[in-house]
Amino acid sequence: MTVLTDRPAGPLSRNTAVEDEVLGRLRDLCDVGGLRGLAATIDDLVGFVRDDLAAVEEGLAALSTGDTLVGEAGASLVHLGGKRLRPLCVVLASRVGSPRASAVRDIAVAAELVHNATLLHDDVVDHADRRRGRPTARVELGNAASIFAGDYLLIEALHRVRRAAVPGVMEGLLETIAEMIRAESLQLENRGSLDASEDLYFEVARGKSAALFSWALGAGALSGGASPELCRALRAYGESIGVAFQLIDDLLDLVGHHSNTGKTLFSDLSEGKITYPLIVALDREPALADTIRAIAAEATPSWGADGLALGHSGPNGDGAANGHPGGANGACRERERVLEAMVRYNVEATCRDLAASYMDEGIEALAKVPDGAARRALTVVARASVLRER
Amino acid sequence: MTVLTDRPAGPLSRNTAVEDEVLGRLRDLCDVGGLRGLAATIDDLVGFVRDDLAAVEEGLAALSTGDTLVGEAGASLVHLGGKRLRPLCVVLASRVGSPRASAVRDIAVAAELVHNATLLHDDVVDHADRRRGRPTARVELGNAASIFAGDYLLIEALHRVRRAAVPGVMEGLLETIAEMIRAESLQLENRGSLDASEDLYFEVARGKSAALFSWALGAGALSGGASPELCRALRAYGESIGVAFQLIDDLLDLVGHHSNTGKTLFSDLSEGKITYPLIVALDREPALADTIRAIAAEATPSWGADGLALGHSGPNGDGAANGHPGGANGACRERERVLEAMVRYNVEATCRDLAASYMDEGIEALAKVPDGAARRALTVVARASVLRER
Repeated sequence: MTVLTDRPAGPLSRNTAVEDEVLGRLRDLCDVGGLRGLAATIDDLVGFVRDDLAAVEEGLAALSTGDTLVGEAGASLVHLGGKRLRPLCVVLASRVGSPRASAVRDIAVAAELVHNATLLHDDVVDHADRRRGRPTARVELGNAASIFAGDYLLIEALHRVRRAAVPGVMEGLLETIAEMIRAESLQLENRGSLDASEDLYFEVARGKSAALFSWALGAGALSGGASPELCRALRAYGESIGVAFQLIDDLLDLVGHHSNTGKTLFSDLSEGKITYPLIVALDREPALADTIRAIAAEATPSWGADGLALGHSGPNGDGAANGHPGGANGACRERERVLEAMVRYNVEATCRDLAASYMDEGIEALAKVPDGAARRALTVVARASVLRER
Repeated sequence: MTVLTDRPAGPLSRNTAVEDEVLGRLRDLCDVGGLRGLAATIDDLVGFVRDDLAAVEEGLAALSTGDTLVGEAGASLVHLGGKRLRPLCVVLASRVGSPRASAVRDIAVAAELVHNATLLHDDVVDHADRRRGRPTARVELGNAASIFAGDYLLIEALHRVRRAAVPGVMEGLLETIAEMIRAESLQLENRGSLDASEDLYFEVARGKSAALFSWALGAGALSGGASPELCRALRAYGESIGVAFQLIDDLLDLVGHHSNTGKTLFSDLSEGKITYPLIVALDREPALADTIRAIAAEATPSWGADGLALGHSGPNGDGAANGHPGGANGACRERERVLEAMVRYNVEATCRDLAASYMDEGIEALAKVPDGAARRALTVVARASVLRER
């Protein structure tokens, strides 16, 4: 196993709590079944990016609530943590070149803020109740606060990117967010439709997830002064691991452990989203359609035949009941039926295999990146994205 | 009456329909009681800004739906029209100097897009049913589409501002939107509270409305290469007429004509917002508190004692019923009682007087602007903002 020591770690002047957090997060990322061996490089990886990631945490911690409800809704989600995978991508891509530390920090913070902004709007749209193991902002502070908090984090992200002043990065972020919104729209239009095709699934996955990963890698590379060819290669890597990441996310929504994901299981289906694992299961066993339809209908009565949530919460009017851990109990039997079919047809393996092929594609894209610590670390990240269980 | 002919109008090469629309809109703005005389200058005013405003309309018409539901939700609100007062402010401020036409157009379009983005989010938050004489996007296409459409217009606005590439304008817009969100938060936190003070009202009005007007004027001035002193003067003008505009808006929400405003009357109170006219009425007749509380309670049962909308639509679950023209009929008697009190205490005159003093403040700020067509047109706009009846 190669160690990641191209650059010496900075002086140990940073806040230890922050370091422990970064360390813990990276361990989480690597400490999964198939990565036990790979995880041996963790200390080197941490040494390699410790200062940058600690600066990112400081940048995120500096996010002010402005003593407002909306500020609190935004900041509290960010401060709950998360995997910080997008900032890590920015930092690692920047290390392919010679980055300016403050620009990298601003761009990495922006990547995390945009991600969190989309979560705040998604949770309102999806009537989601849990996120990162806690009640969502919309449940605790209201839909209105969650909508404006998303706006706030988005603007804060753009402010940081503007401050970073790396040519091309702002433009790329605006295009990326436009792509993300387009994907949200596609998903919305096809809600509740079991005719959703594989093509549509991947179009949405690319727009919703891969686009931001791709931007994070490209922006990191630009901040390090990488060549256009290198930027392209890193963006391609980001696009591939983004799709792999989304595939695993959607799989874990069905077969994950509640305590790991911090989200309500089966939430995608409850929101009328037919994800790849379900598309595979349906393809193997078309009779599953009724069961899947029943779960979607029971959880969100407001998703009509046209797949659109109307301007109200539907007959029972209580969004908080949707997909609640204790709610929708009547759908338990149906959920078991779906899980049984997934086992019967090896759907988990099919999904992980496909994710692994995207991972391979991503690692292949790194061929153009000079061998070194950054490239090796990016390989670790790609593998961890696919093997992760949270 | 001075005519506005400092600059010759451009060649009449533009689309006539667009011109008619611009002309009609400016006539609307000027064709109000006290402005009949002022409206005589309309043809000159149109000649002065016709090409710029036609370019703005073209820029807005080019807004693509991207063949998505979200794109449709965003574009259809923009294409419904509106007063286009913010783009007009950008155009007029730019004419104080020597602007680059494409930059002015992009910034003017951005001002209108940001305004529309906030409307799309506000309408979800407020459960609003009508806007510009039509059902709101959230009613027609769903809350989700309205939320993402707001995001889309915001990103599109930032894209245009980036393209305009006028130093300081992007930075100012990000700060302005942050201010707008902060004001939304303040308003949200104080929803349903009858203790809302005058100070709070003006803090919210400055953040929600005046900030964007101020930015529009300042950005227009920057795009014309105006001096820092001139920019400051025009921003001050924008701030003042923005407050005046909001005061009249809030007045018309109570005493306006449904067919004029295109919105549901008493919608602010239905949304738990205690606006300036109500603060005045309450001050004159404290016993009105119960009546006001009754209207707010009847219209939006989900605004709890804490003034926050929770993550569901409340007991009746049907947001579409709130403030609907035919809905909340039980509150008719209470509404009449409020209107009677407003007549008894001359509340309309009090509000218009205060708005007029903000208008005067705004016109005073123009003292530093060299006399000419632009300054005279800005004076017309200030007067029309206060005297308007729609």
